[in-house]
Amino acid sequence: MTNVTSKWQPYIDRALTELDIPDVPATLYEPIRYMMALGGKRVRPLLTLMGADLFAIDDIHQAVPAAVAIELFHNFSLVHDDIMDQAPLRRGQQTVHEKWNTNVAILSGDNLLIMAYMELAKCPHDKLPTVLRTFNTMAAQVCEGQQLDMDFESTPAVSIDEYLRMIQLKTSVLLGAALKIGAIMGSATEQDAQHLYDFGVNVGVAFQLQDDLLDVYGDPEQFGKQLGGDILANKKTYLLLKALETADATTAAELNRWMTVREQPEQKINRITEIYNALGIRQTTETTKQVYADKAYAALDEIRCEPERKLPLITMTKHLLNRFN
Amino acid sequence: MTNVTSKWQPYIDRALTELDIPDVPATLYEPIRYMMALGGKRVRPLLTLMGADLFAIDDIHQAVPAAVAIELFHNFSLVHDDIMDQAPLRRGQQTVHEKWNTNVAILSGDNLLIMAYMELAKCPHDKLPTVLRTFNTMAAQVCEGQQLDMDFESTPAVSIDEYLRMIQLKTSVLLGAALKIGAIMGSATEQDAQHLYDFGVNVGVAFQLQDDLLDVYGDPEQFGKQLGGDILANKKTYLLLKALETADATTAAELNRWMTVREQPEQKINRITEIYNALGIRQTTETTKQVYADKAYAALDEIRCEPERKLPLITMTKHLLNRFN
Repeated sequence: MTNVTSKWQPYIDRALTELDIPDVPATLYEPIRYMMALGGKRVRPLLTLMGADLFAIDDIHQAVPAAVAIELFHNFSLVHDDIMDQAPLRRGQQTVHEKWNTNVAILSGDNLLIMAYMELAKCPHDKLPTVLRTFNTMAAQVCEGQQLDMDFESTPAVSIDEYLRMIQLKTSVLLGAALKIGAIMGSATEQDAQHLYDFGVNVGVAFQLQDDLLDVYGDPEQFGKQLGGDILANKKTYLLLKALETADATTAAELNRWMTVREQPEQKINRITEIYNALGIRQTTETTKQVYADKAYAALDEIRCEPERKLPLITMTKHLLNRFN
Repeated sequence: MTNVTSKWQPYIDRALTELDIPDVPATLYEPIRYMMALGGKRVRPLLTLMGADLFAIDDIHQAVPAAVAIELFHNFSLVHDDIMDQAPLRRGQQTVHEKWNTNVAILSGDNLLIMAYMELAKCPHDKLPTVLRTFNTMAAQVCEGQQLDMDFESTPAVSIDEYLRMIQLKTSVLLGAALKIGAIMGSATEQDAQHLYDFGVNVGVAFQLQDDLLDVYGDPEQFGKQLGGDILANKKTYLLLKALETADATTAAELNRWMTVREQPEQKINRITEIYNALGIRQTTETTKQVYADKAYAALDEIRCEPERKLPLITMTKHLLNRFN
């Protein structure tokens, strides 16, 4: 995710620096220290504090452990997903299973998840049951999303609806839950907490659609990685699925043929991009992205709180969803 | 573990049967259903109900979700440990990673852990914070124990103390926590809950030492698996470590030489057993086992409750720790 700024950033940075990671067994905790030190933008824990601030929480420090839990959970899922995806790199550094081995990555991932629950246990007791249930529901859904994503690799025909459901589970519910847990900490009503959750989930889907777009149409320098990576990996993105859905039989057959080609990477990227252009996939995807962004803003509108408290969330969302500008 | 009977068994069986496991994605939840259907003696969740009953809990049903959480956690750790240990079989059936694949086993294991926390979230709100903290501490320690166990495979010299620490973490704290969480549900004092925890941990260590003994000196029919499995796997059991500690240089060298031998399984088992016999390892191990059993009973003695309520725990412990008779 792109850089975001917030007055709450130092609270997150400090809490993560002060995170109590034991020294022994080093083979268990060293990979955890390594992973947490790789950085990242810490957007998710920030959302928790922003959610709490939206409802004028008395003491923002009360929401910090839950925010840290969200970041620990995110890192747990990255460590395990990287094993499953056989990813060599994460944030430009070796992944845990590459630097150590798969067993170490399984077990230190497990422990990151347990550490997340250790942080949750620090929530004020009156908030804990609701926070825990919200977190658990999200956690199971993220697993379901990852499983669907893996299933899709061997599914010949994935529908657009199935794809949207998958990204919602795999990546968006975490944003929704991060915000909702903040809202709970800020003593929001159940209804307002749910609106904030809906806001986060819809921003998440819009963000993922933008991510799919950036792989093809991004500015390579700003994007920070090689364009066309999804195309070369035959990844079933929104763009590809929409193209397969929209194309005539001949073009669809050509797309499917390219999926089997491992040579000629440049030709492959160029030709598939040409097909996307001919089918107007960029515009279609932009439109769908906007539908989700609009849903997000509509959910935010429903929330009853001092209007100016919504401004940081609006600014951040605009920032997150406008990476072409 | 050996068969145990308790009036609470039907409560566990029923709760596990009624466990709400979703249908989709089938690739995620089918392995969970499979694993939970493999059975096992359900000793650990039973301990939670027995712990609650020790303190005369008003309604035992209140403790059932926490008991189920303990069993789900146990199954999570089995699924992930089986990947790490490359175990082909579990309870006579294919392990999850064998029947499906490693990715499925990682993710369904993760979800079993999350399901455990879903059950914990059903605890009465006044008990939840303490139950959650007790569970989290145990969960992290079990990971630490598994990591130490893996580390030991490549550690030339493991001390007896290190071994005892490892089995305490890997297997015993789960028994302690299962009982302690029951005690918390039964509104025990902090002190009594801690005594019950100590009872469980010490029973656990004694049980593991007995397990090490059974591999060499067990009745093959009662033991349910081939004798000498640990010897053939060069497993650093209490027996082997004690033998290496006790032996003279020549005998220690012979033991270390056998560790490198993969052929002649029968000769290997026979010769190492002879060495154990010559060194009196069986008696030494029995004595240490008894030290832990005595510690367990001493901790149980400290607990202030109606004495006859302790009888089921004493009966069960005797049953668990007397598998030679």
